[in-house]
Amino acid sequence: MTNSFLSLAGLELQSRSRMNDALWQYVAGVAGDGLSFQRNQAAFDEFKLLPRVLRAAKVDCSLTLFNEPLAAPIMLAPLALQCLAHPDGELASAAAAMAQDLGFVLSTLSSCPMAEVARAACGAALPAKRPPLWFQLYLQPRWQDSLSLIRRAEDCGFSALVVTVDAPVTGLRLSELRTGFSLPANVSAVELEGMQPAPTTLDGLLACAPDWRSIEALRSESSLPIILKGILSPADAALAKAVGVDGIIVSNHGGRVLDGVPATIECLSAVRAAVGPEMTVMLDGGIRRGSDIAKAVCLGADCVLLGRPLMQALALDGALGVARMLKILKDELAMVMALLGASSLKELNRDCLWGK
Amino acid sequence: MTNSFLSLAGLELQSRSRMNDALWQYVAGVAGDGLSFQRNQAAFDEFKLLPRVLRAAKVDCSLTLFNEPLAAPIMLAPLALQCLAHPDGELASAAAAMAQDLGFVLSTLSSCPMAEVARAACGAALPAKRPPLWFQLYLQPRWQDSLSLIRRAEDCGFSALVVTVDAPVTGLRLSELRTGFSLPANVSAVELEGMQPAPTTLDGLLACAPDWRSIEALRSESSLPIILKGILSPADAALAKAVGVDGIIVSNHGGRVLDGVPATIECLSAVRAAVGPEMTVMLDGGIRRGSDIAKAVCLGADCVLLGRPLMQALALDGALGVARMLKILKDELAMVMALLGASSLKELNRDCLWGK
Amino acid sequence: MTNSFLSLAGLELQSRSRMNDALWQYVAGVAGDGLSFQRNQAAFDEFKLLPRVLRAAKVDCSLTLFNEPLAAPIMLAPLALQCLAHPDGELASAAAAMAQDLGFVLSTLSSCPMAEVARAACGAALPAKRPPLWFQLYLQPRWQDSLSLIRRAEDCGFSALVVTVDAPVTGLRLSELRTGFSLPANVSAVELEGMQPAPTTLDGLLACAPDWRSIEALRSESSLPIILKGILSPADAALAKAVGVDGIIVSNHGGRVLDGVPATIECLSAVRAAVGPEMTVMLDGGIRRGSDIAKAVCLGADCVLLGRPLMQALALDGALGVARMLKILKDELAMVMALLGASSLKELNRDCLWGK
Amino acid sequence: MTNSFLSLAGLELQSRSRMNDALWQYVAGVAGDGLSFQRNQAAFDEFKLLPRVLRAAKVDCSLTLFNEPLAAPIMLAPLALQCLAHPDGELASAAAAMAQDLGFVLSTLSSCPMAEVARAACGAALPAKRPPLWFQLYLQPRWQDSLSLIRRAEDCGFSALVVTVDAPVTGLRLSELRTGFSLPANVSAVELEGMQPAPTTLDGLLACAPDWRSIEALRSESSLPIILKGILSPADAALAKAVGVDGIIVSNHGGRVLDGVPATIECLSAVRAAVGPEMTVMLDGGIRRGSDIAKAVCLGADCVLLGRPLMQALALDGALGVARMLKILKDELAMVMALLGASSLKELNRDCLWGK
Repeated sequence: MTNSFLSLAGLELQSRSRMNDALWQYVAGVAGDGLSFQRNQAAFDEFKLLPRVLRAAKVDCSLTLFNEPLAAPIMLAPLALQCLAHPDGELASAAAAMAQDLGFVLSTLSSCPMAEVARAACGAALPAKRPPLWFQLYLQPRWQDSLSLIRRAEDCGFSALVVTVDAPVTGLRLSELRTGFSLPANVSAVELEGMQPAPTTLDGLLACAPDWRSIEALRSESSLPIILKGILSPADAALAKAVGVDGIIVSNHGGRVLDGVPATIECLSAVRAAVGPEMTVMLDGGIRRGSDIAKAVCLGADCVLLGRPLMQALALDGALGVARMLKILKDELAMVMALLGASSLKELNRDCLWGK
Repeated sequence: MTNSFLSLAGLELQSRSRMNDALWQYVAGVAGDGLSFQRNQAAFDEFKLLPRVLRAAKVDCSLTLFNEPLAAPIMLAPLALQCLAHPDGELASAAAAMAQDLGFVLSTLSSCPMAEVARAACGAALPAKRPPLWFQLYLQPRWQDSLSLIRRAEDCGFSALVVTVDAPVTGLRLSELRTGFSLPANVSAVELEGMQPAPTTLDGLLACAPDWRSIEALRSESSLPIILKGILSPADAALAKAVGVDGIIVSNHGGRVLDGVPATIECLSAVRAAVGPEMTVMLDGGIRRGSDIAKAVCLGADCVLLGRPLMQALALDGALGVARMLKILKDELAMVMALLGASSLKELNRDCLWGK
Repeated sequence: MTNSFLSLAGLELQSRSRMNDALWQYVAGVAGDGLSFQRNQAAFDEFKLLPRVLRAAKVDCSLTLFNEPLAAPIMLAPLALQCLAHPDGELASAAAAMAQDLGFVLSTLSSCPMAEVARAACGAALPAKRPPLWFQLYLQPRWQDSLSLIRRAEDCGFSALVVTVDAPVTGLRLSELRTGFSLPANVSAVELEGMQPAPTTLDGLLACAPDWRSIEALRSESSLPIILKGILSPADAALAKAVGVDGIIVSNHGGRVLDGVPATIECLSAVRAAVGPEMTVMLDGGIRRGSDIAKAVCLGADCVLLGRPLMQALALDGALGVARMLKILKDELAMVMALLGASSLKELNRDCLWGK
Repeated sequence: MTNSFLSLAGLELQSRSRMNDALWQYVAGVAGDGLSFQRNQAAFDEFKLLPRVLRAAKVDCSLTLFNEPLAAPIMLAPLALQCLAHPDGELASAAAAMAQDLGFVLSTLSSCPMAEVARAACGAALPAKRPPLWFQLYLQPRWQDSLSLIRRAEDCGFSALVVTVDAPVTGLRLSELRTGFSLPANVSAVELEGMQPAPTTLDGLLACAPDWRSIEALRSESSLPIILKGILSPADAALAKAVGVDGIIVSNHGGRVLDGVPATIECLSAVRAAVGPEMTVMLDGGIRRGSDIAKAVCLGADCVLLGRPLMQALALDGALGVARMLKILKDELAMVMALLGASSLKELNRDCLWGK
């Protein structure tokens, strides 16, 4: 019965009873008044799909990102401390993503050791066609700590680095946890052990925050694809391209960092226009339905990432919950594409939207 | 007293107590979050009527469609399994439509034999001026099954074929019934008996779904007018005209198939523009008032179809309920036309709308 | 205490307890879903006033209409059967208007004899500067009946004829009363006694409804100014000017006749543009505040009329209630004009509105 | 615990229980239906911030106004009778502002003697860098009374005169107090003792209301900077510049004087355009978050003023409450600027806003 949700809206409702209040508040947490969190979802409804008829054909939702295959343009976002939602934490979610032939991004703030996560992921994927397994990097106050994280990720087989740039330093994200929420004794950011903690003042944080030179330095340190996560501004997207970054994730951190910013789907097409058709552009924020994914692809995204639903699905049923959540999205997307008369992702473009 | 509703809003309220929960949910059923269902109705309110004064004259709401007369531009949409709402099912609704000199479209998924429905309809109409009595066709997985349905419809005197194209195959529609709703033993799609059922997977469904070649083949098989139901895209409307289709019904299947599409009234004028002034264009979705009908005609529709109110009226009072529902709409339309200073449907055009 | 309302919003609340349900429903009655009734008020809020500073001067809200003076651009609309709200009915409201140096329009459906109303009005006004006292005319099925009403009005000293044109014949308005509301024995349309009643079918009503020739005939029958009430269309306004009509009241009959039409304030400036700056243009519908009146004048109205608040004020406190209601509006208008830096009505123009 | 609010939204909620109903109503008081009061806050949400990444640097929110320093572009608005909220009244709020290195404007209707307020303020500020301490002037019916107030302000060291021009005379503001609110015996406008009270009629008030000549006269009487408070119209802003006024506060008096006017943030950029980039332009109305301040600066404001939150903070915790309220805004602004990639106020411009 725990597994019986039929949509991500249903998942949200069902998962509520599986989390204690503190966890629920943490997962649902937003910056400010939550305007950007709400807008992320609501803005999708302003784009209308335009179905085409009598074009039914076999629907293929697959793609490749940096030469790795995905069954559909869906990845799990790098959420912190997933053991808060389920004892199996990142081990469960990574395995579920791989089993659905979809991608996974491990957070710097993983509550499971990255080596174990990599093993769980690779065990769940077909060796010849493992989907993307990426590592999200919060650049650390000490460069050597960042390098240590990168080397470990490379050694474990993570195939790209996702650098979060919308929260200047780790500390800002952790501060979130301190508001009415204390970490249980058995959950922590295990990969950060022994590293220098972030300062606790804004001035301190800003003094050690990464800048574009940090990205250039990173570029020279690793041959992995580098993807910047947290860009809304087309100008920043163009800068990212100029410094040799390989991909961008249009994101406002799920409305958790700065309130009063536009929805990610609102920014997407301007970002795509700024970087041209070739660069990899992804999006997170507000994705809850296959139709949302279709709209994002129509407006220029190569792939989307799922955030809060991952924690809800973990809390509800561990790896099985996550797999079910991902499968629902895949099936919904295929159905939407069939009704749009699109047999592949390449056929999803602005002509599939009404009046925009 | 059962018959005492004064508007279709009142009908909806009154009928609620006459249906069990499962039936109510089935009739009210929507795709996704119901955004398109709600928008179908709400979008009418964004068009404002502009009354003209001192032009009162006898109002004539009549028209002909494919040489058959209607007292007003109103038909009953091809709803499945009307015996769910009332034991008389399609027999009652067809007779009610004819008695009001309005048109009726019988669903492939009729719960009454089509020959009996034809007899009931012809018995209720004046022989010399029978209104349109059409047959809605879901193209079947086996072409011979589709042909069998067409031949039966021709033999029974149905005068046009309405091919539903927004739900790729019958199966997709039936699947709706399976969600929390089981058919009573005495209600079934009687005309489909013995035919090959639709596949149950999306790939299977898509493999046998009709395409434009199916329409061309159909065109060569029957001399009846062919009307495609379920078009929102102006490009599809133009294609339909190009392959020799006789009419179009702008429809999003009452918001039951794909959520997040525009309201039908929003698409209407672009569809009309795509096919020119001569082709028959109809609309369903959200019609609840005479003013809605007037707006649809102003924006390019020759006629509208009523869906959910048909099931509500059947449930409330069988044929009498349906007749009353239709009469209210006819009277409301005549009153609206009088206040718009329009003495015939030809005088309903964009000049009757404010500021659009 | 009954007299203690401080705004028309307060009046509405207080008056509710003074009316029985049937009367309340009758006064609050709307066509259809009440969209146009609500929009009449709501549309005012979309226009924003732009205050000017340091221009304070004595504010003069006065004007003349057809050579008769008003202290402010406010008249009472021709509401039917005011004895429903208070035993003194039209006697009270006419006297209250005159005592406030504001205008009054008597309905054809007056529940007090027009001669008595005229006496009450003239008794309350200063002889040398009586404000407008007009007669509203529903053209009757028999021309002789209409003429009889006109002669009586002329004889009683009514100084203009307001011809309602948005409800084709009297009967349509009376039909309203029949819905869940029966007239008390002692209230009736006394001036219509002995006249031929209106038909009860739409066709019948339309057959004897007035048209533009009726207005031309009326023009030749009376030397009084003729004002058409119920125009929304700029084209109709231009026609009215062309046939020699002296004034127009932009009105949708308070949303009681046809739902789904624009708010009167939305139509006003197009109507003004259609007839030029000289013709008298008035407005009713949704006026509840001095700021509403100021906006209407800014957008082209010479004067506004009050409807439902009249019945509410009558029900609450008879003539005193009506006088208080009118005084509140006068005072609010003067305050608004002071804050807009406008010392006379001529200074109220579109420059006083922000961004439209 | 009283001091525990984390945002100005929390402050509002917490302060409610610290005020009696009459005081709460007085502080929350609005003109008309409160549309402009609500719009002041809501309009901020229509402007979206566009974050920039990887530009972190030390954030400096400081500025100078008329050669006096502020730690951030925040001042306390000249609210009347602050002893209503806390026995320390203006003494507390002035000291709190100075202690946060922010500005304070004392109302003509101060409930503490201005000399004592000046002493409290100067005691709380570092002598060498005292933030702005200004005096708000309601021009009095008798010019000599106005002069007396000015001389006292100059003598006490107030460094600018803020002339409120959106409420033509003092009396209009005081009348507000009379509605369901009577002043406690120990609270009064102490600086007005012995002065001629304002008339109580609109005509009387208007007869002695200030005009542009009053401002010119004032200009010649004092060498202090003169700032007009209460301007929404760009034309008035241009006039102010033309007569030699030094600064403008875009304000609609918190929605307390005339309802139905635009939000101040809506008017800001047009006002800025009318006076050019050099003149000091400030804004009050609806500021509740650091992001609101950032938006105001992006749209042309040099500084903002806080109104109702001042009374709420006073009621909650006197000087400590006010200081905490101001600190929250300062910290929020710094965080917003960091996330916008702006290291100083000069870098806040329209490029920081999305799509406007």
